[in-house]
Amino acid sequence: MTPPLSTPGPTVGVVGGGQLGRMLGEAAGPLGIEVVVLDPTPDCPASPVVKDQIVGGFDDEETVRELAERADFLTFEIELADPDLLERVKSDFDVPVHPSPETLRMIQDKLGQKDALADAGIPVPEYRAVDDAAELRNALDEFGTPAMVKAREGGYDGRGNAPIESPDEAEAVLDSVGGSAMVEEFVEFERELSVIGVKGEDGISTFTTGENIHREEILRETVVPARASEDVLEQARSVARDVLDLMDGRGVYGIELFETSEQDAGSEASSGDSARDGDILVNEIAPRPHNSGHWTIEGAVASQFEQHVRAVTGRPLGSTEQRDPTVMTNILGDVEKTQPAELRELDEVLSTPRAALHWYGKRDVRPLRKMGHITLTGPDDDLDTLLVRARELRDAVTFTDD
Amino acid sequence: MTPPLSTPGPTVGVVGGGQLGRMLGEAAGPLGIEVVVLDPTPDCPASPVVKDQIVGGFDDEETVRELAERADFLTFEIELADPDLLERVKSDFDVPVHPSPETLRMIQDKLGQKDALADAGIPVPEYRAVDDAAELRNALDEFGTPAMVKAREGGYDGRGNAPIESPDEAEAVLDSVGGSAMVEEFVEFERELSVIGVKGEDGISTFTTGENIHREEILRETVVPARASEDVLEQARSVARDVLDLMDGRGVYGIELFETSEQDAGSEASSGDSARDGDILVNEIAPRPHNSGHWTIEGAVASQFEQHVRAVTGRPLGSTEQRDPTVMTNILGDVEKTQPAELRELDEVLSTPRAALHWYGKRDVRPLRKMGHITLTGPDDDLDTLLVRARELRDAVTFTDD
Repeated sequence: MTPPLSTPGPTVGVVGGGQLGRMLGEAAGPLGIEVVVLDPTPDCPASPVVKDQIVGGFDDEETVRELAERADFLTFEIELADPDLLERVKSDFDVPVHPSPETLRMIQDKLGQKDALADAGIPVPEYRAVDDAAELRNALDEFGTPAMVKAREGGYDGRGNAPIESPDEAEAVLDSVGGSAMVEEFVEFERELSVIGVKGEDGISTFTTGENIHREEILRETVVPARASEDVLEQARSVARDVLDLMDGRGVYGIELFETSEQDAGSEASSGDSARDGDILVNEIAPRPHNSGHWTIEGAVASQFEQHVRAVTGRPLGSTEQRDPTVMTNILGDVEKTQPAELRELDEVLSTPRAALHWYGKRDVRPLRKMGHITLTGPDDDLDTLLVRARELRDAVTFTDD
Repeated sequence: MTPPLSTPGPTVGVVGGGQLGRMLGEAAGPLGIEVVVLDPTPDCPASPVVKDQIVGGFDDEETVRELAERADFLTFEIELADPDLLERVKSDFDVPVHPSPETLRMIQDKLGQKDALADAGIPVPEYRAVDDAAELRNALDEFGTPAMVKAREGGYDGRGNAPIESPDEAEAVLDSVGGSAMVEEFVEFERELSVIGVKGEDGISTFTTGENIHREEILRETVVPARASEDVLEQARSVARDVLDLMDGRGVYGIELFETSEQDAGSEASSGDSARDGDILVNEIAPRPHNSGHWTIEGAVASQFEQHVRAVTGRPLGSTEQRDPTVMTNILGDVEKTQPAELRELDEVLSTPRAALHWYGKRDVRPLRKMGHITLTGPDDDLDTLLVRARELRDAVTFTDD
């Protein structure tokens, strides 16, 4: 049962104060829940919309303890949080941490993540741990080139990932990702999908399956619902529910999937790999609200951020029902070098009905840095039209003064 | 043209940090606009969701100057703001103030407000200034009893208003409202309506006409659209647009209206009063977001709070389109005396799909104090069903521990 609400409300301590922390803060207010973030950057994106920011590193023992002391519930909005440290403060301050530090640790290690999924019978691309070039060449013998080499830890927005075209490149590619690595078959996919799921005290719930459009390994647009068959949407939801069952701890999880293309599905059937019995493969899991779930703010009844706040604090989950067809597009730094951010030409997006601008409050713009996003909902428009229009709105804004 | 957006964003200084300031803060974040509020109560409702609170009185010269110095735009969320002081800081700090101090002054004086409306040909109930009991009795001779006596200044949520049943009560009623007063005919109305309007740099816009249900002169529920004829909804919108044209300065205005009953419309026609040529009479205007517009957060594309932020900062207005049939119900203090607020029995409202809880962050609950609200949207439900359900959800929460 939800305890009585008073003022000051329950405090959620968040490791990280970037745009996800900012949108968590924006969602917590109406529920009467206060947010304190921990972030090394003074005046971080979340700071103007939350109760307080503690300035400190994500893995700084002293400041994480300070956060735990002020918090009734702890969570994180960045995978760089330190699971060992979170486990210590959880026990020292008797403060619930969601998702669990154990889940964070499992997800941080891309190999451990894949092992956990495969062990649970959840379909994933073929993969192998590779500690040296010989192992990498052996793996490529098995499932061919091109393939994708990934650092086991620390990757983000495509960093730490490198494609490999030929066994000759084994040494060079391993060097480039650095440290311990894994290799994954290159999946021929029809679409990249994602399901935002939420795990609450009393059960799990999923938002409508979205379609993600990447370029240079960075998410550009999410189209919801994904333009796939009903059957594929349902399969994606079903796989996502299996993933959520596997996770330990409450909160929102972003689950990235591949819808394999016909050709790939065929080769898979002949290989007889038991982990590959569907059209859906899990690519990666994020134990937090996810860029591909930003559409839920305008497009669903309760947003992924509201759901995360509800789940972490043990409240009943809100409705994940979609309200309208929706397209989200990221506003990325369209500059050649780092400079103070000034987003220009705002009038078109601000004056377009059902276009919502979200600014993340970052001081500097860097090439391809996520600076904000635009969501366009359209009860009467088809998704292709919405996507074209959303891109036009995004392309109309710029950080350059040409 | 909207200037480029950078971080820190433009700052809106708000006189008042109650629930309206809080919801302004919640709406400003996504637009990249920062909010600083001025309020005498430390840790006022807005404080956990805005950049900063300055602690000080609404009419305290020093703190209002401090607010003006930090703000790129000034506005107010409470009519107790001091128009003379706002005019001074506007000129001393060269900071735009919206709505204009002149409009605030006109609205603060209920008689001046009625005069301005009547002079512009906008339909209002019959009224007279009354400075003593003899004048009040004369007015009652003209338009009968019962009637409503109102203090010219300082009324709020029914305070400063007193009904009068007979000329014999003239002295006592004038004493009870205190100071300078006016008397208004008692309007037989079919419904109380309100239109939330917004005046931007380039034009005006109105939200769907709502129906307000009062008890003990305090708003209990708003039903949108109002359950009136298309013709009445359109008339209300048209009168509201005339009111907006009359206002000076950008921002959101709450326009309360009466839909007169058939009987009253008849007597009015026979009286031949030229100010009374329609079924709609203006009751009162608020130069700020209004309780009867809270439904717009979930029920419309851009909320009244987002619109106010957009208007005050000179940005293009958002869409006022309604998304779904909506009922808003206030959560009032159901206690007999002031005590620390603890809202209990939250599970039903939190687990009802499309019910949104808004908590205002007030420490103490007082009898009938506005502590929060619940909004219920229902694409497939009729308004009567939504209203019954919203009342059930509201009645399920309580500040008592019986």
